[in-house]
Amino acid sequence: MFMSRFFTEKLNNLEPYTPGEQPRDMQYIKLNTNESPFPPSEKAIRYAAEEAERLRLYPDPECKGLTEKLAAYYDVAPENVVVNNGSDETLYFAFMAFCDEKRPAYFPNISYGFYPVFAQVNRLPYTELPLRDDFTVDPEDYIGKNAFVVIANPNAPTGIALTLAQIERIVAGNPDGVVVVDEAYVDFGAESAVALTKQYDNLLVVQTYSKSRSLAGARLGFGIGDAALIRDLNTIKFSTNPYNINRMTMAAGVGALEDDDHMKANCRAIMENRAWTVAELQKIGFTVLDSAANFIFARHPRIDGKELYLTLKANGILVRHFNKEALCQYNRITIGTREQMETLIAAIRRLWEDQL
Amino acid sequence: MFMSRFFTEKLNNLEPYTPGEQPRDMQYIKLNTNESPFPPSEKAIRYAAEEAERLRLYPDPECKGLTEKLAAYYDVAPENVVVNNGSDETLYFAFMAFCDEKRPAYFPNISYGFYPVFAQVNRLPYTELPLRDDFTVDPEDYIGKNAFVVIANPNAPTGIALTLAQIERIVAGNPDGVVVVDEAYVDFGAESAVALTKQYDNLLVVQTYSKSRSLAGARLGFGIGDAALIRDLNTIKFSTNPYNINRMTMAAGVGALEDDDHMKANCRAIMENRAWTVAELQKIGFTVLDSAANFIFARHPRIDGKELYLTLKANGILVRHFNKEALCQYNRITIGTREQMETLIAAIRRLWEDQL
Repeated sequence: MFMSRFFTEKLNNLEPYTPGEQPRDMQYIKLNTNESPFPPSEKAIRYAAEEAERLRLYPDPECKGLTEKLAAYYDVAPENVVVNNGSDETLYFAFMAFCDEKRPAYFPNISYGFYPVFAQVNRLPYTELPLRDDFTVDPEDYIGKNAFVVIANPNAPTGIALTLAQIERIVAGNPDGVVVVDEAYVDFGAESAVALTKQYDNLLVVQTYSKSRSLAGARLGFGIGDAALIRDLNTIKFSTNPYNINRMTMAAGVGALEDDDHMKANCRAIMENRAWTVAELQKIGFTVLDSAANFIFARHPRIDGKELYLTLKANGILVRHFNKEALCQYNRITIGTREQMETLIAAIRRLWEDQL
Repeated sequence: MFMSRFFTEKLNNLEPYTPGEQPRDMQYIKLNTNESPFPPSEKAIRYAAEEAERLRLYPDPECKGLTEKLAAYYDVAPENVVVNNGSDETLYFAFMAFCDEKRPAYFPNISYGFYPVFAQVNRLPYTELPLRDDFTVDPEDYIGKNAFVVIANPNAPTGIALTLAQIERIVAGNPDGVVVVDEAYVDFGAESAVALTKQYDNLLVVQTYSKSRSLAGARLGFGIGDAALIRDLNTIKFSTNPYNINRMTMAAGVGALEDDDHMKANCRAIMENRAWTVAELQKIGFTVLDSAANFIFARHPRIDGKELYLTLKANGILVRHFNKEALCQYNRITIGTREQMETLIAAIRRLWEDQL
């Protein structure tokens, strides 16, 4: 990092998050940032486009219309819902509100790479707890911490989900600290903890429109939890960026909820394509972790992870590779259309013919 | 405030910002949040609506296209520009990056009400320096601080602008601290300090699309400064919310810049309406501060400020009233269309017939 001479020394060691590549040099089959291969709901697109006519006026900072829709959809009250400029912002606000010296952060050492950055930028203490050797989270590691616990469920980049009973065990085992369950990928086969927010005042469930609702480009995420937690997150929001959701995104969010069949059908298709892709990869010798997400995490005993990533990229297929030692033999592959997955499998068969 | 039992004690005393009312109980003549009375550029609307078709994919976190357009428009290089989710976010990031115990914040005690909140939420030391009795900023108060200085120019809610020479005096007088010039309202008659960013590595100019470009509902702001300052702001952005600008807003921002005549014509109309309104108010005994913004700050010797606000509201006209003692006899009135301003003047003449 090259800081200006004015940059605060407090953040000297800050290492920003690195988003997945968004290359513009050529057209790739883009299986690297877990976007949906399917377009968003026509209703979401139409509402957003119509709202473009009304950009003269500020949006509603309380996001009432959207919040009420989300509450009805998830069977909670409007005061149990906060919406943000992407779920990253909900997570960032949660670190600000609920984590401090008294309640340091705990999360798995292999998980969404942004968690340690959220802690660092707020200068908060955090501990990364190792996964088991099979890449699963051991719920027992998180019991009795009474601190600030963040669990991605399903986890990334592994795709592995905890059961609802395991999540509840973590929440019940930390009555004096907030447990954030980051459900960015929950709609692809995991069990949501939303219903538990009625029983536990320390549970915050975070979701996003970027994956199952195909709206990564709109930036919309939300949190569901006890009304007091939501009030706290709004305190942070109104102290940093009250008008954080623009009018068009808010309208898209409403439209997408009104078109639930569209979302559900897309999720089913992705789960089918995932099952097909996993079976095909296994046929040619890959180890694939058990995924409940719209991506899979896979390695081959005779193909180096980084080589796989680079060679596929040179052949127009983009997947996500992580340099971290425990992960570098794997690649995270977003589940696309059936046609895209067939192209991927054919490319691997062709490119590594001798090793398979 | 009613915090949850989990809310960090560090922020116990945080008082969030209160945005202007966005009432939905009836239709008002809305002169309370400094929105433009004119619609945005047709091009901005069209580009945004078209981009709604492409929401499936993440936006470019580097906002290259928009940044390059802004750089060309303001005659700087792309590395001198950062775009954010509203100028509030640029300001928030600037407090995070450039203000600390060594460089505490200084700003006027009467200015944008968000500055003290940005300091509080980051637990940063700050001092509010009093304006002169005539509500002007004395540049000499800010010389030699070598700390973090924030000046709104024109200032809010007064509308009074410093000259470019006065701004340069403050910037040159603080070579070891960043000076932020918040130019939210600069297009309505003040001199921009953008050109000074080439000479001073400690100057950050912040602007917004919400006022002169009629895009308050799209949430788009930007900062211009030395490349090292901009890099620092991007370090904060990539550590909090890398995809902070959605695709539609980015497209609207490009469209608005391509339609500069539209913006300039609107600014001219607002300045004409401002001159007319000031003259009419003075005719009926109001004192009006000298405004270079799209609002005016006015009081009447025989009409209580809060009464004026409440009575106008009951009659369908919304202006902004502040309870702060030094301001409570004034109201901040956004400049609308000529017709809206005629309605306002007629309403005041009718409602306070006996006092005028």
